[in-house]
Amino acid sequence: MPEFSVAHLAHAVGGEVVGDGSRAIDGVAALESAGPREMSLVANRRYIAYVPATRAAAVLIATEFVDEIPGTLTQIRVANPHAALRGILLLLYPPVHPEPGVHPTAIVAENVQVGTGVRIDAYSVIGSGAVLDDGVFIGAHTVVGEGCEIGMNTVLHPHVTLYPRVQIGAECVIHSGARLGRDGFGYALVDGEHQKMPQVGGCRIADKVEIGANTTIDRGSIGDTVVGRGTKIDNLVHLGHNVRVGERAIIIAQVGVAGSSIVGDGAVLAGQVGVSGHLTIGAGARVAAQAGVIGDVSPGETVSGYPARPHREALRSQAAAFRLPSLLKRVRAVEKALLRRTKEAPDPGK
Amino acid sequence: MPEFSVAHLAHAVGGEVVGDGSRAIDGVAALESAGPREMSLVANRRYIAYVPATRAAAVLIATEFVDEIPGTLTQIRVANPHAALRGILLLLYPPVHPEPGVHPTAIVAENVQVGTGVRIDAYSVIGSGAVLDDGVFIGAHTVVGEGCEIGMNTVLHPHVTLYPRVQIGAECVIHSGARLGRDGFGYALVDGEHQKMPQVGGCRIADKVEIGANTTIDRGSIGDTVVGRGTKIDNLVHLGHNVRVGERAIIIAQVGVAGSSIVGDGAVLAGQVGVSGHLTIGAGARVAAQAGVIGDVSPGETVSGYPARPHREALRSQAAAFRLPSLLKRVRAVEKALLRRTKEAPDPGK
Amino acid sequence: MPEFSVAHLAHAVGGEVVGDGSRAIDGVAALESAGPREMSLVANRRYIAYVPATRAAAVLIATEFVDEIPGTLTQIRVANPHAALRGILLLLYPPVHPEPGVHPTAIVAENVQVGTGVRIDAYSVIGSGAVLDDGVFIGAHTVVGEGCEIGMNTVLHPHVTLYPRVQIGAECVIHSGARLGRDGFGYALVDGEHQKMPQVGGCRIADKVEIGANTTIDRGSIGDTVVGRGTKIDNLVHLGHNVRVGERAIIIAQVGVAGSSIVGDGAVLAGQVGVSGHLTIGAGARVAAQAGVIGDVSPGETVSGYPARPHREALRSQAAAFRLPSLLKRVRAVEKALLRRTKEAPDPGK
Repeated sequence: MPEFSVAHLAHAVGGEVVGDGSRAIDGVAALESAGPREMSLVANRRYIAYVPATRAAAVLIATEFVDEIPGTLTQIRVANPHAALRGILLLLYPPVHPEPGVHPTAIVAENVQVGTGVRIDAYSVIGSGAVLDDGVFIGAHTVVGEGCEIGMNTVLHPHVTLYPRVQIGAECVIHSGARLGRDGFGYALVDGEHQKMPQVGGCRIADKVEIGANTTIDRGSIGDTVVGRGTKIDNLVHLGHNVRVGERAIIIAQVGVAGSSIVGDGAVLAGQVGVSGHLTIGAGARVAAQAGVIGDVSPGETVSGYPARPHREALRSQAAAFRLPSLLKRVRAVEKALLRRTKEAPDPGK
Repeated sequence: MPEFSVAHLAHAVGGEVVGDGSRAIDGVAALESAGPREMSLVANRRYIAYVPATRAAAVLIATEFVDEIPGTLTQIRVANPHAALRGILLLLYPPVHPEPGVHPTAIVAENVQVGTGVRIDAYSVIGSGAVLDDGVFIGAHTVVGEGCEIGMNTVLHPHVTLYPRVQIGAECVIHSGARLGRDGFGYALVDGEHQKMPQVGGCRIADKVEIGANTTIDRGSIGDTVVGRGTKIDNLVHLGHNVRVGERAIIIAQVGVAGSSIVGDGAVLAGQVGVSGHLTIGAGARVAAQAGVIGDVSPGETVSGYPARPHREALRSQAAAFRLPSLLKRVRAVEKALLRRTKEAPDPGK
Repeated sequence: MPEFSVAHLAHAVGGEVVGDGSRAIDGVAALESAGPREMSLVANRRYIAYVPATRAAAVLIATEFVDEIPGTLTQIRVANPHAALRGILLLLYPPVHPEPGVHPTAIVAENVQVGTGVRIDAYSVIGSGAVLDDGVFIGAHTVVGEGCEIGMNTVLHPHVTLYPRVQIGAECVIHSGARLGRDGFGYALVDGEHQKMPQVGGCRIADKVEIGANTTIDRGSIGDTVVGRGTKIDNLVHLGHNVRVGERAIIIAQVGVAGSSIVGDGAVLAGQVGVSGHLTIGAGARVAAQAGVIGDVSPGETVSGYPARPHREALRSQAAAFRLPSLLKRVRAVEKALLRRTKEAPDPGK
């Protein structure tokens, strides 16, 4: 494992050292578990309480918290601790780049184009007409269908399936068990039977997209299913046929987006969100966990609940729901009061 | 790619040509992206607006919309545009039937029965005693457990797992990553530990069933888990042990059905629906997306929400929930009005 | 298939025979489908109605129901019918232990430690530095990453992926398509792009854990993701980075737990539950199906709904919601009554 001084790490991430910059660091750990050669971080106010007892050699601290940190622990102060942490992790845990080469058990069709620096691991199967650009990594057991195209430095982990003619951009990461380009869920009702509608569209993934384990993205029925540049998709997500996701969107685990819906640039769909078909989620919109979206969402809006509606409104309505049982009692009391008065004091107007 | 005249396609699907039937068609695309050798369709009123600007050579139109279509675009008029589209797509994009044969890397146990016209792709593993009927296709890397039976012309895509003794009918399609016949989630609490209950039942899939990518269908604990003829199941669905799904049901992505529940013929479970164990969803019932079913659903009924209840009732209650905050204010006003009167105008009956 | 007398089975599970203990039994089936050489069970009062018509040779009955069982069917009476059923199933359907050995197509790196009695099936790939303890079973096509450790008698079914350095205890069962140790979903926003945060933590699964098909458990970002001893996890579950699940917990299908949350010992998360990040579900807590947990749950508490709250409270609020439309009407009537009186009978105080 590599080892660096606190001062070296601070310099690498543009931070300021306060304390002993000469201490040696060979790892990063949480405050409560870090050892004397590890550094830790305080990116969130709630972790300040763990600082006094930590054995860490140094701590990465957001500038905004420096006045609240007790004791004399060596610090690296930075404005953006997450970005700095990323830089430090990349130094201490340098990514392993497997050697290029084609494993003898890989089955690569004759007319596949393979760029330089490509690695194709054991038992993978690359279909005819596929194009693997420079630096592509194909994990063990991954199946790349006929005519697929994979961009530079993209990594397919083991056990991925690409159905035929899927296009993936550069610098993507596709995790184990992802299934891209499956024939979508479309049927025509003919003579009382569901007859499969041929799914002749494509599945296009732009550059710098990450797709989680066991996630499924169906191909288009007519026209393509599309995921935009820089979008990150977590595990067990489902995107139906002809869904179009914009750039830099975040789609968290177990989200499902039904056919032909559009997810705008920078939108965030939290875990287990469901989006019905043929809807538009505007750019920068945020959908809270488990929300069920059955209508369009405006750009920048935050929605929650089922059916999803503006978050403030949903919160007010939830708060009111809590008070429903007592409200019922109050209405009953009001009714009784009115009734009593009517009986005891006959309407003076009569 | 095949090419046909508009007139030929119209004839093939029983449609009526209005305009130039001689134009050549070699593909189908959406109205806004179609080129001059492609045809498009208007199956839904909302797409009529795209007709004036389309470059499509012709358009498939539901008879009911013909009076609303502007311009002089060549038309194929049909009563059921989805059925007609299916016919046209099958002509223009004829399905590829892979050559029969057993890939040299496939591992087929000695006593497997293999019908005529079967294809077994690279690295697949077929366990002893399995039966593959005529025309079966086994995709790369698919594992068929001991004693499984697979009916005529059924397709298993790459990376499917069949646990031992799973039975699949004819003309089924099983997508990548589907796991059929897993030991279900059953335990006996013995001495404070969850001890696995042996799952000795089967998993039987009838004819013409489609099962989506990464879907899991557990085997029965005692007795079988069953999916009926013509039922279509989307991606990432879970069916627990001893679930029985009827014929022609539709189960959309990410649905979960807990153990021993019954889904009737023709029922529709929309995306992310959850059904608790030991329940019955009646024939033809419809369960709206994300609904949580915790009681039986009558045949033909439509339910939604959590807990799922008749859709109209759920809608009324949702609408009322929207008005809750204002209702709270109104009750407060009524209470004040009553109180004020009591104070200012002592009860006349006293 | 083995065959035993009713008396032998009763003796094996500590039950009492009432009726003909000499009858031969070779299987277990549901009351309505059992044949004359099979036994069945009544573990639940609702199945008593099926007893009169059953063809079963004998029936396993919970002591508490014996007075309600009609007819003269041979019985095995026990206090805990599930535990007894388990014992009987293990006798009648003895688990198959595959022969030890390494399939010639398995790729095992040179420095892998392989214990005695290990079986490594076709096309599996074992990365360098991995440790497989005695009796481990590696199913076909399973990929074990570099440096993984797998404890005694643990079973990995076909098509499992272990990312590097995953640790699994003894006597675990990992089902097909499970993905353990994936790099978690963490990004730092740098210059408007989501940059992957290196995920340098581990993924540790303790002894006697079962993990369902297509379930995903991400590795920790810093520090480990942990699943405790005896915990059982169903299909299609997602556990995010740094989640810590205690011992003997039950996590049912399609549950999602976001990063850094803690699930206490013996807690039960029912199907499709979602848990937000950085929360604590107390020991023995129960979360009802589809609930959305957005705050801590106290030990032993039962919560339901979205947002999850104590189950009684949620039920009361649901019941009140049913009555909302009528409540609206009642408030309107009260308002009218007040208004009418004000108009018809001018306030006497004036």
